[in-house]
Amino acid sequence: MKTIAFIGLGKIGQTITYASLIDGIFDQAILYDIIPELPEKFEHELRHAFATKGVNTDLISSNRLDDVTGADIVVITAGKPRKAGMSRRDLFADNAKIMYDLAKKLPPKNPGAIYLMVTNPVDMMASIFSKFSKEYVISAGDQVETMRMRSYLAKKYKIPVTEVNGFVGGEHGEDAVVLWSTVSIKGNPVEESVHQEVENYVKQIPGEIIRVMGGTTWGPGTIIADIVRSIALNENRVMSIAIPREFEGEVIHVSIPVVVGRTIGPSIEQLLDEKDRWYLMAAMKDFHSTYRELIKTSMIDQLS
Amino acid sequence: MKTIAFIGLGKIGQTITYASLIDGIFDQAILYDIIPELPEKFEHELRHAFATKGVNTDLISSNRLDDVTGADIVVITAGKPRKAGMSRRDLFADNAKIMYDLAKKLPPKNPGAIYLMVTNPVDMMASIFSKFSKEYVISAGDQVETMRMRSYLAKKYKIPVTEVNGFVGGEHGEDAVVLWSTVSIKGNPVEESVHQEVENYVKQIPGEIIRVMGGTTWGPGTIIADIVRSIALNENRVMSIAIPREFEGEVIHVSIPVVVGRTIGPSIEQLLDEKDRWYLMAAMKDFHSTYRELIKTSMIDQLS
Amino acid sequence: MKTIAFIGLGKIGQTITYASLIDGIFDQAILYDIIPELPEKFEHELRHAFATKGVNTDLISSNRLDDVTGADIVVITAGKPRKAGMSRRDLFADNAKIMYDLAKKLPPKNPGAIYLMVTNPVDMMASIFSKFSKEYVISAGDQVETMRMRSYLAKKYKIPVTEVNGFVGGEHGEDAVVLWSTVSIKGNPVEESVHQEVENYVKQIPGEIIRVMGGTTWGPGTIIADIVRSIALNENRVMSIAIPREFEGEVIHVSIPVVVGRTIGPSIEQLLDEKDRWYLMAAMKDFHSTYRELIKTSMIDQLS
Amino acid sequence: MKTIAFIGLGKIGQTITYASLIDGIFDQAILYDIIPELPEKFEHELRHAFATKGVNTDLISSNRLDDVTGADIVVITAGKPRKAGMSRRDLFADNAKIMYDLAKKLPPKNPGAIYLMVTNPVDMMASIFSKFSKEYVISAGDQVETMRMRSYLAKKYKIPVTEVNGFVGGEHGEDAVVLWSTVSIKGNPVEESVHQEVENYVKQIPGEIIRVMGGTTWGPGTIIADIVRSIALNENRVMSIAIPREFEGEVIHVSIPVVVGRTIGPSIEQLLDEKDRWYLMAAMKDFHSTYRELIKTSMIDQLS
Repeated sequence: MKTIAFIGLGKIGQTITYASLIDGIFDQAILYDIIPELPEKFEHELRHAFATKGVNTDLISSNRLDDVTGADIVVITAGKPRKAGMSRRDLFADNAKIMYDLAKKLPPKNPGAIYLMVTNPVDMMASIFSKFSKEYVISAGDQVETMRMRSYLAKKYKIPVTEVNGFVGGEHGEDAVVLWSTVSIKGNPVEESVHQEVENYVKQIPGEIIRVMGGTTWGPGTIIADIVRSIALNENRVMSIAIPREFEGEVIHVSIPVVVGRTIGPSIEQLLDEKDRWYLMAAMKDFHSTYRELIKTSMIDQLS
Repeated sequence: MKTIAFIGLGKIGQTITYASLIDGIFDQAILYDIIPELPEKFEHELRHAFATKGVNTDLISSNRLDDVTGADIVVITAGKPRKAGMSRRDLFADNAKIMYDLAKKLPPKNPGAIYLMVTNPVDMMASIFSKFSKEYVISAGDQVETMRMRSYLAKKYKIPVTEVNGFVGGEHGEDAVVLWSTVSIKGNPVEESVHQEVENYVKQIPGEIIRVMGGTTWGPGTIIADIVRSIALNENRVMSIAIPREFEGEVIHVSIPVVVGRTIGPSIEQLLDEKDRWYLMAAMKDFHSTYRELIKTSMIDQLS
Repeated sequence: MKTIAFIGLGKIGQTITYASLIDGIFDQAILYDIIPELPEKFEHELRHAFATKGVNTDLISSNRLDDVTGADIVVITAGKPRKAGMSRRDLFADNAKIMYDLAKKLPPKNPGAIYLMVTNPVDMMASIFSKFSKEYVISAGDQVETMRMRSYLAKKYKIPVTEVNGFVGGEHGEDAVVLWSTVSIKGNPVEESVHQEVENYVKQIPGEIIRVMGGTTWGPGTIIADIVRSIALNENRVMSIAIPREFEGEVIHVSIPVVVGRTIGPSIEQLLDEKDRWYLMAAMKDFHSTYRELIKTSMIDQLS
Repeated sequence: MKTIAFIGLGKIGQTITYASLIDGIFDQAILYDIIPELPEKFEHELRHAFATKGVNTDLISSNRLDDVTGADIVVITAGKPRKAGMSRRDLFADNAKIMYDLAKKLPPKNPGAIYLMVTNPVDMMASIFSKFSKEYVISAGDQVETMRMRSYLAKKYKIPVTEVNGFVGGEHGEDAVVLWSTVSIKGNPVEESVHQEVENYVKQIPGEIIRVMGGTTWGPGTIIADIVRSIALNENRVMSIAIPREFEGEVIHVSIPVVVGRTIGPSIEQLLDEKDRWYLMAAMKDFHSTYRELIKTSMIDQLS
């Protein structure tokens, strides 16, 4: 993995870019945004940061999608951001059109690339991009929720976060489910009486952060950059992201713990307990029906 | 160095905090800002980031300055930010009052701490804080300009930035001077015909970035976090920061390449050529007279 | 994970210790070896290295096993080393007695520790230690072979090693099998005509290195330190190590790709293709019968 | 800095190589030793280590000095090692001949390279290499002693080593002097009553380690790799190494704290106190007279 492209350089896009590049693991990075001068000025900022860190990654910045060529990984954050009070699904229609456009333009110049979707609603945008591009697309999915869950338990029990393991899966956002069969503290399961507050935290904390800070950046930015890193360095970390899967003839994206390296998969869904698998299946059905409906009502189908 | 405190959690404060903490080199960090809920919500963001990185640094967040205790390093970004078109000196009066307040409240609870000033006008705020606290204060000074200078030369000559060495000194901002006797590309001096455009870049690029992006964050944030790192890990890197020095009976801050480790200094001013030393002396005189005047006109003297 | 202990400070033990500690991820490390003065002198060497790196991990060195207390992870390399021409199994009898001793003495003072076995024959020593201690023991297993396999393919095809994925499993050493259903180059399977030479390399390269260099250290040391890191930082990397499993009433150790974090497992055996699973089953049977026989002939059974 | 060459792959050479390369900061590394198969087998070991770390540095190994081409930095450890009881100067004659040979063969194929001497007696070998090659040569000098001094004080006072600053200078080995005017603990000077035991430690610990472990590797290997890193990443750390200086018409090497980046220097000798400067001057005189004498008695002069 030598070249990475970032499509979208808003707050979250900038944070992912920074966190992905600052350790110098790529030979080249391409910075794209539609806003005039933004990629170029952001390039300057990164160059200044690289100077103190001794990072020699080549940087290319552009407002032209045509300049995004030869990427091994493409990280997509382009689209409207989720604002306070807005549901992730509200964004569907507008951002789906942007994905359609990207799905047509990016693949011809970036053969063999892995696409990492971050634009919300993230799983559906991954499916939409997949639908129109036929490329391999993953969604950042619930890896952010996964880390929020671990972080909450660590703080609650005043232990290092490295003592907490486990995953959140299903849909990203309000319908994410903690996969309790995977969760442990110092190797022991978490008592059921605590489940509800953990689930509440995972659902409510992004809204809380957005209300005060205007958006979530440092958490998701770092976590998603670690997905990038695990692919680029072939670390094979297990992360709760959404990989493409067939469901009633449609490619859909629902988060499941999955091995993330130069190749992505297998998922370890089969190794979860029955209850957690049931939740994942329910999430898939729910995703699928909502997805079908949203495609219809927003007339995205007619784009192709 | 075990505990670090961050006073001010605006854009630049957040970026410095993130870049200082993400490698897990501190045992504890204290996050302070005057804005309600901001420290606490930023703490959540950092915890999420720490979860993926396996960082176990303890975090404390507060709106009360009283909770800032036992810090070994205190990074100050609190104050009004520099807006597009505004001179760094325009900020003097307002931010000096904030420094007066911090200088009275922080030292009693943080004995032996090193203070790193980032609030603009950065050198003067360092001097003001020093004046009222009698503590050891350094200013981030021209280390940011230093990296911008190297970055420009690297891009111009299409070489890795690690091939460019040298420093910018004097006052931070519009009056910073490239210390040409220290500058080299692959070990060779830079031809004089290029000097002007380099100096222009260093002066103009922050304004350009602010115009498009609303502020400079990634560059300064990373560079200033490397000052923190060099102190905390005792790396003894030579950096162009401003350390306190007596000048006509007053402690003032002007940037000079200086050894930055657990102890700070000596500066290598004596080892510069005559021309560069002349510029630094001129910068000190200029700083001193402006500083005296600003103190008078803003009636800061009457605070003590 | 705050404290790590290293039992055995020979060449490989030193290399694992160094590579595990040099990034400063532990609070404390305990260095044990039976050779007088060796732990203490090695401690000095590490302290000198820590000084330049800014690492503040506490070090304790001792010739007394009693001083090994409170460890979260215990890495065991103690025992006779494998010499040129010697089979790993030749070592069984002598090293099993050492394991019996350690299994009796270490657990009482290190409650809840994870034991990582490196002493050869590594899988059998893990089983022996497990048998006598009833503690949770993993064997470094085939993670070293896994990296050798990837490294060979990368060199052969002149591509970055990060482009090669896949695992070696089964028994450590001569009987290790490449799990071809997991192996890929830039995402594509490896043609069968190449399989034999890869398998030969994995089997023969350690002997080649030992013949010229006297032992293998840098490869295994770094790879095993990454197992330690994945546990300590809860990275959840998938690695081919041997975790305890019941087989005909006996706990045995055979390498399978498994998730390695603060909790270890699940293995992804069920997700392999039929052929690879058949090989793993055969390895287990083979391991079991050899193990039973060696225990009998070396009269290890009579120790308990 | 893209390519590094290692001349000599004994114990210390291997450790420096490993520690210099494992973070992936070079594009290419050339491994040379005179022992048949050693470079090639060591290359395999490094490749296995790189696989787990995701390092993609190109490796070239050879027994032919002719294959060492295009290096930006050349690290020389070739020569006879210092054995227990042997003075560093005993090695002079034999290793000087090796340096003569390298000085004739390496420069033509490695234009512009910086040579970092590690072979003992290290300062004299640097001067010899400089004499015959006219290239820019630095000696690892007293940076190892510097770290040993800091490490001793940290252990004695039970404080983190990052709280201790200061340097050892002069000749490498028995005649090294602690530059007390630079030494501090938490920013305060060290009481004189402690000086003697610190000096004793610095002088005696390498012999102690060699007696028990057969050689010093982890300490010097890591410390010297950090010299390499500071050059390659242009970190500008101040380190106590020996840079070439004219003394009575001869280029000699005596350790002084010096800025180590893409350019090396200035030294901060002028900033030391009078006592420390006197010691350094004495060391230079001593070095010079011994050096002249050794050159004569070993008839090295007649080589050119």
